[in-house]
Amino acid sequence: MSSAKATPVSPLAPTSVPELPPIGGVGIATAQAGIRYSGRTDVLYLAMQPGTQAAGVFTRSKCPSAPVDWCREALAREGARALIVNSGNANAFTGSRGRDAVALTAKIGAEAAGCRPDEIFIASTGVIGEPLDATKFEGVLADCASRTETGPEAWAAAAQAIMTTDTFPKLGTRTATIDGTTVTINGIAKGAGMIAPDMATMLSFVFTDAALPQVVLQTLLSAGTQTSFNCVTVDGDTSTSDTLMLFATGAAGNAPVTDPGDARLSGFRAALDDLLIELAQLVAKDGEGARKFVTVNVKGATSNASAHRIAMSIANSPLVKTAIAGEDANWGRVVMAVGKAGEPADRDRLAIWFGDVRVAREGARDPDYSEAAASAVMRESDVSVTVDLGLGDGTARVWTCDLTKGYIEINGDYRS
Amino acid sequence: MSSAKATPVSPLAPTSVPELPPIGGVGIATAQAGIRYSGRTDVLYLAMQPGTQAAGVFTRSKCPSAPVDWCREALAREGARALIVNSGNANAFTGSRGRDAVALTAKIGAEAAGCRPDEIFIASTGVIGEPLDATKFEGVLADCASRTETGPEAWAAAAQAIMTTDTFPKLGTRTATIDGTTVTINGIAKGAGMIAPDMATMLSFVFTDAALPQVVLQTLLSAGTQTSFNCVTVDGDTSTSDTLMLFATGAAGNAPVTDPGDARLSGFRAALDDLLIELAQLVAKDGEGARKFVTVNVKGATSNASAHRIAMSIANSPLVKTAIAGEDANWGRVVMAVGKAGEPADRDRLAIWFGDVRVAREGARDPDYSEAAASAVMRESDVSVTVDLGLGDGTARVWTCDLTKGYIEINGDYRS
Repeated sequence: MSSAKATPVSPLAPTSVPELPPIGGVGIATAQAGIRYSGRTDVLYLAMQPGTQAAGVFTRSKCPSAPVDWCREALAREGARALIVNSGNANAFTGSRGRDAVALTAKIGAEAAGCRPDEIFIASTGVIGEPLDATKFEGVLADCASRTETGPEAWAAAAQAIMTTDTFPKLGTRTATIDGTTVTINGIAKGAGMIAPDMATMLSFVFTDAALPQVVLQTLLSAGTQTSFNCVTVDGDTSTSDTLMLFATGAAGNAPVTDPGDARLSGFRAALDDLLIELAQLVAKDGEGARKFVTVNVKGATSNASAHRIAMSIANSPLVKTAIAGEDANWGRVVMAVGKAGEPADRDRLAIWFGDVRVAREGARDPDYSEAAASAVMRESDVSVTVDLGLGDGTARVWTCDLTKGYIEINGDYRS
Repeated sequence: MSSAKATPVSPLAPTSVPELPPIGGVGIATAQAGIRYSGRTDVLYLAMQPGTQAAGVFTRSKCPSAPVDWCREALAREGARALIVNSGNANAFTGSRGRDAVALTAKIGAEAAGCRPDEIFIASTGVIGEPLDATKFEGVLADCASRTETGPEAWAAAAQAIMTTDTFPKLGTRTATIDGTTVTINGIAKGAGMIAPDMATMLSFVFTDAALPQVVLQTLLSAGTQTSFNCVTVDGDTSTSDTLMLFATGAAGNAPVTDPGDARLSGFRAALDDLLIELAQLVAKDGEGARKFVTVNVKGATSNASAHRIAMSIANSPLVKTAIAGEDANWGRVVMAVGKAGEPADRDRLAIWFGDVRVAREGARDPDYSEAAASAVMRESDVSVTVDLGLGDGTARVWTCDLTKGYIEINGDYRS
C-alpha cells in the first residue's frame, strides 16, 4: 500500500495491456476518497443500467469481511445498479462497526445511483482490523455517478484503482454469441498482494452486456470458478475478502435464455471460462516474489476431486516451490507432496514429468532421465509439473508461482 | 549433507547438551560405511538384549520409504535386537530395489546381532530416489556389534550420527518409577533438515530399561505422539520417512504390567510424554532458517480435534510465520488462518493474544491494545500465539518456528 516501497513489476507480467471495449450499460469512474492515504486513487465506482443481474462467489473463510457478508445478502435480492470497491481498508474483523460501515456505504451509493441500497455491491481491500470511516464516501460517490465513462481508458483505470501491492493491472476481454447476438465480457482482477499489516485480498469483477437471468449467471460463474480461481494458489493462505462477481446488463438484447444448460450458451460459457482462467493465471503471475509461473497437472487419480487435492498439495508445498525457485528438478519433493495429500496413491505406480521430461516412473527414477534436459526445463519462466498416479481417470490442473526470498521480504519486513 | 556448506547453529539450540545415562541392555556403536560420502560417520548400530520389546509410529505418507514399510512389518512380530540407522541415502522411492536393500541390510544386521532379520529395525535418511547399496554394510555391522559402548559419550555419538542438516544434536533423558522400581528413558531425534536434493526426515528413537510388553509400549507411544511430534510442524511438508520408535529392554526388572491403563504406569507415562515433548520441541527449534520458537495455543474450540486443526492452520500459515519472523504482531493474519481452517469459528467471538498481550477480542481490535507491549513480546526468541474461539472446551497446543530467508536459502539453492 505504501508508496514509499515500490515493488518491481513481476517478470511474469504480460508484455502488453489489453484494450477493453465498452460494455453496454456500464459506466466507470474512479476517485480519491482518502480512505487511508491522501493523494491516491482508492475508489472504483461502476454504474450499471436498470435490470442488471448479478452472481457471486466468495471466500469460504469462517471469518469473512463485512463487505462479503453484505454482498451475500444483497445477492438474495435480484438486481444490481452499482459496484463500489475501495482500497486502503478491508473492513474485515471490525465487528458491528464494520456492518454499520457497509450499510452507510450502500446508503450513500444508492443515493448516488438512484436505487435501493441492496442493489449496491461493495468490496474492500487493504488493512484489516481498522474501522472504515464510510463518511469519506459522502459526496465522492455522487460525483463519480455524474462523470462515468465507458472507453478502454476507463477500464484500465478501473483495473488500476483496485490494485494494492499488485505490480501490474489485471484485465481481459472476450466475445461470444448467444443465439446469433454478439455479446462482450470484460473482467478485472487484483491479486494476492500483502504488505504488513495488510491482508491478502483476491478481487475479480466480470461484466457482460448479455441478457441473462441470475440463475444462469450464478450457475456459469460457480462452474467457471472451479476451473479458474479455485485452481490458483500463491501461498495457501485464504483471504477473508475473496470476491468474484459477474454482472450482466442485458444491453446486447440477445434472446432470453433461462436454462443454464441451454446449448445456445455454449459459446458464452466457453468465453467466460477462458476469461476467468486468464484472470486467475494473472493473479498467480503476480504472486508475491514470483519469478516462475507453475502449472501442476495431475492425472490418473481415482477422481477429479482427488486429483485436485493432490495438485494443491504439490502447488502449496514450500519445498516444491523453493525447489522450482532454485531451478532444481527435485522430483523427490513432488513424491513427498503426493504422499502427504492423504489421497489414494501407489508409490510404485507414480510417474513424474518436469515439462515433457519424464524424471520418474513406476515409483523410481526414470532410467532414461537426462539431468541436462530437466535442468533446461527448470530454467524457463513457465514450468509445468505433471504427475500420473496410474490409478484411474481423475485429472486436475492448478497454477501457482515459485517461493522466493521476495515473498519473505514482502511479508516478513518489520511493520514499523 | 555436504560438509562444504556449514549452516550456523540455530540460535534456539539448548545451551548445554544433556549427559545420558546407560540403559541396561543397550549398546551403541557408530561407523563410516561410505553410504554417500567417505570420511563421515553415517551409520548408527544400536544393539538390544534378548527380550527387548518395540513399538513404533510412522509417517502417514502414501509414499513411505522402504525402511518404513520394513519396520511396520517387523513390528507385527515381537522382539527387537538391533536398530540400524544410516544417513546419506533415504532409500525412498527406490521401487523393488529399495525392498531388496532393506532385506539385505536386515540380513547383514541379523548375522552381526545373532538374531532373526525381523528383529532388526532400520531407518534411513538422506537423498531420495537413489538406490541404496546395502552391501556397504557388510563387515561394518559385525564390527559395530563387537565394540558397542553404553556411556554418555556413546549416546552423544548416536545423536550425532543421525544428524543430516540438523545444526545441533537432539537428545534427552528422564527417570520414573514403576511399582517402586526406577527406570530410565533415553531419547534421540533428528530434525526436519533438507538440502537439495535431500529429503526432510524426522527420526526419533527412545529407549528404556523398563520391562513392558509391546501392547503397553505401543499404546503409550501412540498416545504420547499425539501431544508431541504430531504437534510440531516446520513447513507442513510431511516426510516419506518419519519414524518414531520406543524400545524397552526389560533390564530394570520391574514388576510385570500388562494393562496400558494400569495406574502403576502413571509416572512412566508422564516421563515418556515429557521426553517426547522435549524432543519434538528440539525439532522445531532446529527448523530450517528458524530464529524464533513459536507456541500456538487454541482454546474455546468445539472439540480438541477442531482446536488442533485450527492451531495447525496458524502454525503452517506462511503469512503468520513471516509476520513472526518480522516481529510484527499481525493478528489479522491469525484471523485469516483461523478462518481458512474450515473448522467452526465465529468471527465476532474471537480473542487473540501474543504472549500475554490481548490484541483482539469480540471480533475486533482490543481497545486497550498496546502496540508497544505487543512489539516487546514479538522481539523475544520464544513467541506464543493464543486464540480463544469462545465456542466450547476444545484446546490444542502446537509448536513451530518462524519462516525466514534462511528457509529459502537452504531449500531453494541451485542443486549443482
